[in-house]
Amino acid sequence: MARIPVNESPRERNARMAAENRKRFGGRRVFNMIGSPGSGKTSILERTAALLGPALAVIEGDVQTALDAERITRHGSRAVQIETGGACHLNAEMVAEAIEKIDLDGVEVVVIENVGNLVCPSGFDLGEDAKVAVVSLPEGDEKPVKYPALFMRAAAVIVNKTDLAGIVDYDIERVKADCRKLNADVRVFEVSAKTGAGIREWVEYLRKG
Amino acid sequence: MARIPVNESPRERNARMAAENRKRFGGRRVFNMIGSPGSGKTSILERTAALLGPALAVIEGDVQTALDAERITRHGSRAVQIETGGACHLNAEMVAEAIEKIDLDGVEVVVIENVGNLVCPSGFDLGEDAKVAVVSLPEGDEKPVKYPALFMRAAAVIVNKTDLAGIVDYDIERVKADCRKLNADVRVFEVSAKTGAGIREWVEYLRKG
Repeated sequence: MARIPVNESPRERNARMAAENRKRFGGRRVFNMIGSPGSGKTSILERTAALLGPALAVIEGDVQTALDAERITRHGSRAVQIETGGACHLNAEMVAEAIEKIDLDGVEVVVIENVGNLVCPSGFDLGEDAKVAVVSLPEGDEKPVKYPALFMRAAAVIVNKTDLAGIVDYDIERVKADCRKLNADVRVFEVSAKTGAGIREWVEYLRKG
Repeated sequence: MARIPVNESPRERNARMAAENRKRFGGRRVFNMIGSPGSGKTSILERTAALLGPALAVIEGDVQTALDAERITRHGSRAVQIETGGACHLNAEMVAEAIEKIDLDGVEVVVIENVGNLVCPSGFDLGEDAKVAVVSLPEGDEKPVKYPALFMRAAAVIVNKTDLAGIVDYDIERVKADCRKLNADVRVFEVSAKTGAGIREWVEYLRKG
């Protein structure tokens, strides 16, 4: 057990616990997935689970219905649900409690599904290797400009619901350009959780970068 | 100036300032609009402004691009932007500052567009008469079940992007039933900010209830 400094601020406490989480994850590839409610985070993870099976563990932090965990575990992936108590973002302590409850043996990739929110989650390190922002076509193409704090920190951006291209107005080249202005090295994945398009490239990134 | 209690908690302070805002709004009809990023709050307000013109004032609290305010004011409605500094919800103090900056003479309806977020804003009284939740078809039909804290407090729910009915899976009868379980008196408006469908009924509600 690490020593706990007496006058630790909440931010220092989170940074310390995130560092502890990072050790516990033991070199596995860990992603902090952040997106609006309805952007399709759980549906993307369901598709991801179908390809990764037992190599995937999901820490579910979105305000959830009980049905959601089953969508992940039916493919042999592991899932643990965080009781957020209505919080607007996850913190490292919540993730530390989740790690206690999940068997990571055989797991290569861990995805933490954050609370559906583009503002609050972006400021909290959970012990992940990379943040992944999820947006979707019907939300509109100005999200990177409106929420720069998230998009400058996101190593990858998933643009979901590409099956709605041509039905809703969305300039994906603008989104890519705006993302690159905020993070020159960002990886952008165009996917449809509905049809499965683009999911293989995303899963390849999860496994190998 | 009201007396400020010395040992006021943040929650007490917000309640006191919300009560002060309510007085300053002087009997105008005031709505606190809460929805996810991309649910179409600003587009609905643009349609609303086209019908209400100078009778409408909008207090914009969403993390905004400068373009958004112009979409409101071109119809003669008034708009003032709140600098949220990246906050995840508005509080009554931010709204008090906005009221100082806006001329409410001739205004009948005030809509406060909250930060795009379904969690944090629902717990803060801004001095409104009613909270309005905005959801949209592509977000999925489980939002009332997932975010009961908002939907039990919302006097009205706008279901936006009805132009996508039949293109995305969405059971609107389920949504209405779930909303009514949380608030038996809720008013539900089915609109498309894109086509204008349903906007008249919504504006009628704003004006007369």
